[in-house]
Amino acid sequence: MRPDASDSPRGIAMVGFDADDTLWRSQDYFDAAQAQFERLLADYVDLADVGARLYAVEQRNLALFGYGVKGMLLSMVETAVELTGGRIRGEDVHRIVELGKQLLQHPVELLPGVRAAVEAVAAEFPVVLITKGDLFHQEAKVRQSGLSDLFGRIEIVSEKDPPTYARLCREFGIAPQQFLMVGNSLRSDIAPVLALGGWGVHVPYHTTWAHEAQARVEAGGERLRTVPDLAALPPAVRDLAALAVAG
Amino acid sequence: MRPDASDSPRGIAMVGFDADDTLWRSQDYFDAAQAQFERLLADYVDLADVGARLYAVEQRNLALFGYGVKGMLLSMVETAVELTGGRIRGEDVHRIVELGKQLLQHPVELLPGVRAAVEAVAAEFPVVLITKGDLFHQEAKVRQSGLSDLFGRIEIVSEKDPPTYARLCREFGIAPQQFLMVGNSLRSDIAPVLALGGWGVHVPYHTTWAHEAQARVEAGGERLRTVPDLAALPPAVRDLAALAVAG
Repeated sequence: MRPDASDSPRGIAMVGFDADDTLWRSQDYFDAAQAQFERLLADYVDLADVGARLYAVEQRNLALFGYGVKGMLLSMVETAVELTGGRIRGEDVHRIVELGKQLLQHPVELLPGVRAAVEAVAAEFPVVLITKGDLFHQEAKVRQSGLSDLFGRIEIVSEKDPPTYARLCREFGIAPQQFLMVGNSLRSDIAPVLALGGWGVHVPYHTTWAHEAQARVEAGGERLRTVPDLAALPPAVRDLAALAVAG
Repeated sequence: MRPDASDSPRGIAMVGFDADDTLWRSQDYFDAAQAQFERLLADYVDLADVGARLYAVEQRNLALFGYGVKGMLLSMVETAVELTGGRIRGEDVHRIVELGKQLLQHPVELLPGVRAAVEAVAAEFPVVLITKGDLFHQEAKVRQSGLSDLFGRIEIVSEKDPPTYARLCREFGIAPQQFLMVGNSLRSDIAPVLALGGWGVHVPYHTTWAHEAQARVEAGGERLRTVPDLAALPPAVRDLAALAVAG
């Protein structure tokens, strides 16, 4: 069934958790900021696709800015100048920067049942937090979440792809086949871990950034469970762990 | 002499290197971008202290943005709007964003003798790279430097203070008294490590961001050497290592 794991130790040795929209609300705040941005530009231009144009600028800038609020903010400024043909007023540029400052300061609101679910999993497995984006902002959110004592390690990475997860597993001293990842993004949390022979529990969130929604699980579906919320996580992890031991 | 180290293992067990302005040029590019920013604002306002006002905005935003190009860029946009009373034109906002994009893409230019010096130290001690700032940008620079194969670990941190160095030493499995840090900033690279009982080699750079220049070494001067360039580093490390063994 899993020829890539045939020589590896069996069982789950570590469980990783994504943070934004898995442990606490995040995308809602981004969506609200984008709606404010669109209202602000409506004073200048009559365009139905401001959101799509912003997304195109963000994608273009991703290789330079990486993920996170500050990069999004700079893409918003750039989009505003472009779409208004340079007519954007200083006061509205200021409003865009303020939108970003609010995003960087929103309270960290845990999703329902998070603490109990992480504690239940942590009672059986070492757990780590793996999140991508802006180092400074993510560290601040982890501190405010009150959850940092539950995690043995907190890893903030610039991209969540197979090479990153492979490096983390090396640093953790485990094989990817012993690693299980929990998260809301198929693209960032699930597909790359399954591709390495690992395990995943997908916890969908009600809203997903277009970028994260672009994913298909190509292989390893038998090592994936989907649960409606974190309350259903501990039994799903136990179920997969039993499968992993059976091999 | 060092009561804090009396119960600790002796000798140097690991050498850390700062990156920006220690291994490669960085502040020069920031200085050039700031000069361009000042010229751009000279079209609007007749102020001799644009640089000082930008610095004040950067300091105000540091707790929110952290270090790095993107935060500086957002502070530039904010300063431009403030100082022009909102009269800044869209095309000039665009020029500021472009300044930042150039900063994010400047070539990584190693300082003279870097590779030989790091190789010489690495032949005798495990070496790690410890840099602060924007995760995404710093990772890109490390990749481009061609030096990443020399370092056992690369740590990108949000602040270089005693708690951060203490955490890193725990993760490295050594006591702070066994750690030696090499860098150009007394504030970020030297003073916090000396404060923990560690060792430092200061390699001054010809230009220093005002923020990094604010430091005094309060204690531990006997565990510090200053060298004019990295060619003089290996003997300075050996000298301190001999002192550390002697205790």
